[in-house]
Amino acid sequence: MRVRHKPWAKGKLDRHSDIVVQSPRDCNGEWHDEFHREAPLHVEIGSGKGRFITGMAKKYPNNNFVGIELHESIIVTALDRCLDEEIENVRLINEDARGLTEFFAEDEVDALYLNFCDPWPKNRHEKRRLTYSTFLAQYEYVLKKGGILHFKTDNQALFEYSLESFSKYGFTLQNISLDLHHARVKDNVVTEYEEKFSEKGQRIYRCEAISSE
Amino acid sequence: MRVRHKPWAKGKLDRHSDIVVQSPRDCNGEWHDEFHREAPLHVEIGSGKGRFITGMAKKYPNNNFVGIELHESIIVTALDRCLDEEIENVRLINEDARGLTEFFAEDEVDALYLNFCDPWPKNRHEKRRLTYSTFLAQYEYVLKKGGILHFKTDNQALFEYSLESFSKYGFTLQNISLDLHHARVKDNVVTEYEEKFSEKGQRIYRCEAISSE
Repeated sequence: MRVRHKPWAKGKLDRHSDIVVQSPRDCNGEWHDEFHREAPLHVEIGSGKGRFITGMAKKYPNNNFVGIELHESIIVTALDRCLDEEIENVRLINEDARGLTEFFAEDEVDALYLNFCDPWPKNRHEKRRLTYSTFLAQYEYVLKKGGILHFKTDNQALFEYSLESFSKYGFTLQNISLDLHHARVKDNVVTEYEEKFSEKGQRIYRCEAISSE
Repeated sequence: MRVRHKPWAKGKLDRHSDIVVQSPRDCNGEWHDEFHREAPLHVEIGSGKGRFITGMAKKYPNNNFVGIELHESIIVTALDRCLDEEIENVRLINEDARGLTEFFAEDEVDALYLNFCDPWPKNRHEKRRLTYSTFLAQYEYVLKKGGILHFKTDNQALFEYSLESFSKYGFTLQNISLDLHHARVKDNVVTEYEEKFSEKGQRIYRCEAISSE
């Protein structure tokens, strides 16, 4: 996502430490304290401007949501959405998602969302894809047994790769859609990317991968 | 496949018992005797007019191929191809593929091919789909450990269903293509259906499912 650099973003994120968690590693295993309630914990990797996670938070007020996004000039828009809409069940982490297993304890997470991540099309960049086995190991670690990884992309090659990667790793696949916006799917909350690609007539691919351990 | 009834088909099939195996159950566990050689055994379920299996047989002369097709007015065309092209590494079974575990012994088959089977789109017909779990159990039984089920279809819903069904059953997925004829795939042998659908611009879906047991 190309975005204008916002020099003021850092300051704004710091001022809203009730939403933008400053020391996410300290919450490891104790996210319910951060939300002041026990509730299923749903985590989005790469939340961008936060349209998806705030949409989900409003749709499912009984769940706790954490969005991770590295770029401060982007995540600040997600913060604005939370503030403007007075959303109380979202926390944001302004760090690289590679820290996932530091932010969350083993079996702490009920659901993970991975939406429109970078396809890294070149073979030599396979290890950077967020559905490469080293990342799947992290997802499996933080997910409860039976926890679900929700995956969406518009990139056909990444989807083919990811289905194989999930399968090889031992995740079980369900709710596969090879053309999400032409399927009778209820409850799909769209991301910024998704709207843009879908309006161009591109197929959106979706699947869920269930952790077995 | 709609096909003109050929009252003479049965007689012709009977006359060529060297190719159309009359008692396939007697070959169970001993198909190499039928081929007069030890070679990897590849089986197609629903061979239709035989374009795929004869194409594969010519391409891979070191494998033994068995094609199963219920309809005698259709399989007779497959027989004609074998005769016309003097193909020696194909045998045909003119029976319902439900007899698979009677025709082949446990772990006897190296590869199975399932091409453009009936999608049975209604939910109440799920059990008739050839990728329903009861059929997968049969495939797993006859396939060697690590044996591969090759699956192609033009039907998006059947492909979505089948990926989930393979995954749930414990097959591992590989070589997924969501648009086979626009991918740089070598060695794809096309079927009659495949050519027809692909020429209409429809996507052809393909995957391989590896048996774990």
